[in-house]
Amino acid sequence: MTTVLKLGGSVLTHKDERETVDETALGRAARAVGGAIESGRADRLVVVHGGGGFGHPAAAEHDISATDGTRDADSLVAVHRAMGRLNRRVVAGLAAADAPALPVRPLSVVRRTETGLDCPAEPVRTMLDEGFVPVLHGDVVVHEAVGGTVLSGDDLTVALAAALGADRVGVCSTVPGVLDDEGEVVPEVTSHEAIADVVGESDTTDVTGGMAGKLRALLAFDGPAAVFGPGDLEVFLRGGEPGTTVR
Amino acid sequence: MTTVLKLGGSVLTHKDERETVDETALGRAARAVGGAIESGRADRLVVVHGGGGFGHPAAAEHDISATDGTRDADSLVAVHRAMGRLNRRVVAGLAAADAPALPVRPLSVVRRTETGLDCPAEPVRTMLDEGFVPVLHGDVVVHEAVGGTVLSGDDLTVALAAALGADRVGVCSTVPGVLDDEGEVVPEVTSHEAIADVVGESDTTDVTGGMAGKLRALLAFDGPAAVFGPGDLEVFLRGGEPGTTVR
Repeated sequence: MTTVLKLGGSVLTHKDERETVDETALGRAARAVGGAIESGRADRLVVVHGGGGFGHPAAAEHDISATDGTRDADSLVAVHRAMGRLNRRVVAGLAAADAPALPVRPLSVVRRTETGLDCPAEPVRTMLDEGFVPVLHGDVVVHEAVGGTVLSGDDLTVALAAALGADRVGVCSTVPGVLDDEGEVVPEVTSHEAIADVVGESDTTDVTGGMAGKLRALLAFDGPAAVFGPGDLEVFLRGGEPGTTVR
Repeated sequence: MTTVLKLGGSVLTHKDERETVDETALGRAARAVGGAIESGRADRLVVVHGGGGFGHPAAAEHDISATDGTRDADSLVAVHRAMGRLNRRVVAGLAAADAPALPVRPLSVVRRTETGLDCPAEPVRTMLDEGFVPVLHGDVVVHEAVGGTVLSGDDLTVALAAALGADRVGVCSTVPGVLDDEGEVVPEVTSHEAIADVVGESDTTDVTGGMAGKLRALLAFDGPAAVFGPGDLEVFLRGGEPGTTVR
């Protein structure tokens, strides 16, 4: 059973402060992962984390997004390093909870070609085979004919899950799932129409992020994907389907 | 013209001191690279650096070598981070000399399978296509059925040059080339027998490093490879064949 778990940048960091890890939230998430691995419930687990207060301000400062690229190496390196600082903290947090975490830097391995993301599965798969927990992150990646652009943690999660043939995906963000008009969690969404219904038309045009973007990316994944809050991480890692399941 | 340039760890660092960059040597090498790129003489250049006083002490402390592996993620991460600290310094040094350097971390992309190194060329090739200078390094990599082992900068250089179909390889180390009994540089070696002749039989059994190891790895490369000292880096980048050429 291969699982790809996205840990939102806004879960792990204080998003409004520059490069500040939420140690309590990181510790809690790391213990959930460590416990699931130790008990054998999550035997092949890949972690992808977002940028939070590390990646987003750096990308904004250097005017790089998923669509606006640059050929300026210094700008790409600045964003990549900001994400590297967060990745080191996440890997160390997981290690402290006895999860055998190894960093995998998307800039080194993923590229955007004219037909889409090229996200080779082999290095990550070999790490899983050897019992490690690969820890990837949103990053800048090289982009054919453009230079370099941002690859969001959400897009990476879906591409990597597809490349690995993962069985399930979990997206742990600050909200407990997709909420309806009355603030209740919608247990399941299965189509683009359903996304428009619950999230609203205007939000569905937000292609670079936000809940609608996440959901549409997850619909492309050929398996169940759960969107849930930090309190439900253990339930998800036990095999449950907390929050909203996209299929 | 694609060139893979190995910069020895003992060139860039004070090898007997812990994690100390030789700023003068790094600055000189970076200016040679920056100048060659600016003038268009080195249009597709990949840099690989060794471990020097960063990687080697860390690997020794954690008992990891190219043949002795470990499944302990903390040990692998410790060696990888030591190399990351040097890689950041090398990338910054190249950037200061106007070379558009991007880091590529071997742990993220290279793996050792039971049949040998799997070193995908695509991420590095796309960086070259987009005008960047990928900067790799000796590292720990995952190793099928073993966990993780050390991948030397020399082995990486040859594997990457082969994967890229590079036209030439340069190995810049602290010596001006292969020396004969009288301390003179041997201009060319073309066979294993010639290596035994010049380096001596005992040294040729040193498979993990040293000059004999370098030369034997370079003989496997399907193109000319020059072994030279730091003073000849500009000559090499101008297209010359300083020091000893292995073919």
